[in-house]
Amino acid sequence: MRILLTNDDGIYAPGLRALRMELKKLGTVTVVAPATEQSAAGHSVTLLVPLLVNEVYEDDGQSLIGWAVEGRPADCVKLALLELLEEPPDLIVSGMNAGSNAGINVIYSGTVAAAVEGAFYHHTAIACSLEYDKKIYDFPKGANYARQVIEQILANKPAPGSLYNVNVPVLERGPIRGIKVMPQNVSTYREKFDRRVNPRGRTYFWMGLDFHCPSPNPDTDVTALAEQFITVTPLQFDMTDHARMRAMQEWNWGEMK
Amino acid sequence: MRILLTNDDGIYAPGLRALRMELKKLGTVTVVAPATEQSAAGHSVTLLVPLLVNEVYEDDGQSLIGWAVEGRPADCVKLALLELLEEPPDLIVSGMNAGSNAGINVIYSGTVAAAVEGAFYHHTAIACSLEYDKKIYDFPKGANYARQVIEQILANKPAPGSLYNVNVPVLERGPIRGIKVMPQNVSTYREKFDRRVNPRGRTYFWMGLDFHCPSPNPDTDVTALAEQFITVTPLQFDMTDHARMRAMQEWNWGEMK
Repeated sequence: MRILLTNDDGIYAPGLRALRMELKKLGTVTVVAPATEQSAAGHSVTLLVPLLVNEVYEDDGQSLIGWAVEGRPADCVKLALLELLEEPPDLIVSGMNAGSNAGINVIYSGTVAAAVEGAFYHHTAIACSLEYDKKIYDFPKGANYARQVIEQILANKPAPGSLYNVNVPVLERGPIRGIKVMPQNVSTYREKFDRRVNPRGRTYFWMGLDFHCPSPNPDTDVTALAEQFITVTPLQFDMTDHARMRAMQEWNWGEMK
Repeated sequence: MRILLTNDDGIYAPGLRALRMELKKLGTVTVVAPATEQSAAGHSVTLLVPLLVNEVYEDDGQSLIGWAVEGRPADCVKLALLELLEEPPDLIVSGMNAGSNAGINVIYSGTVAAAVEGAFYHHTAIACSLEYDKKIYDFPKGANYARQVIEQILANKPAPGSLYNVNVPVLERGPIRGIKVMPQNVSTYREKFDRRVNPRGRTYFWMGLDFHCPSPNPDTDVTALAEQFITVTPLQFDMTDHARMRAMQEWNWGEMK
């Protein structure tokens, strides 16, 4: 099996290294990942400037790990599929992200965007993230769980273009209670900016970090993660609100003047 | 009515200026928009660096237009709602974008992401884009149509958090045939990279520009735009594939080792 691995924390991130080691148990892994951290890149792509690409080798200097791209996670997947890979991959994996990508954070996530991009191209794609607390991450253990979930997904023979979002809860909080297939929570996080003044007296703002979702909907990825379950959410990328659309089609639309 | 106006082409973009003139017919408009072009920014937000903000005035130097933010479209909406606006807006408008945001381009679009961000905060939000051909844009005319569509949406008293994506077709191709409420097309565009060599002999890649969607699904935003209709698509931001989720909940998930 040929696996394309990418992420949004950058090609040298420990989460990617750990997941690469696990995925090598399943097949041949080629990495095409951002050269630098791209957290919260969302589904941005690079149009205004060119993409510089560097080959990255194992410490022996001989074995190609893949390519570092000075761009966004979605750029990496496009470039891998259209230019860099000699053969199409059987599976695209993105991660393992440092931090969960659940609830509306799915929309901000570069990790998930890379997987969505793979699904655009009709590849099975799985985003993997590890929730953390107090900046402690056991990526080898988290990636081991992620690989087991990936194996179970593949055992069910997903249709091409199937897209999944996998989150592993904080491992230091206690044992994993199992896997739950859950929808994305859609309630809003509590956010705030730090308002600061620079040395020249000018006000600036810095986004605070608060992953606390004050009132998640029950039975969602956010609640199941908090209950120490690994969550799996199948995703799609039709953002149409179909119920509301049918109502709007009945509106009495006026003439354009 | 208090209207927050943003975009992804930057606060000095002609599309925003034209839309601002039209929206002033409906209420008080405050602009919070990126200082520079942020095309294809997707739903990225700025975490790693602070957000610098500058007040922007009319040519008289007295009347505040709003704020230019050195960040992404979604940053602008967050910052407007949490820090800059004295009172919450009654409506958030994003645009008018130079180029359509239909089909899967909705996912890449900073224009749409800004509106989605507004909907996260339970505001009615409308993204407006003008399709173009040969780099000709009649923004005053396009913004006039967009304002008429916005008025019709508001006349139907949308629930808070309602989110809409409005596209105006190429105006030079012929008269507008009307408004169609259509779902987002989800088939893939044909994309390619230019592979080039820099003056030092290093290969780099540059995303080509091809808005041709080879096989759009019938009765979608993409097909209706091509037939010279203004399209309106109600959007939502639950990316869960609910049908596939129900099937996956029946899977026989194995124990984690």
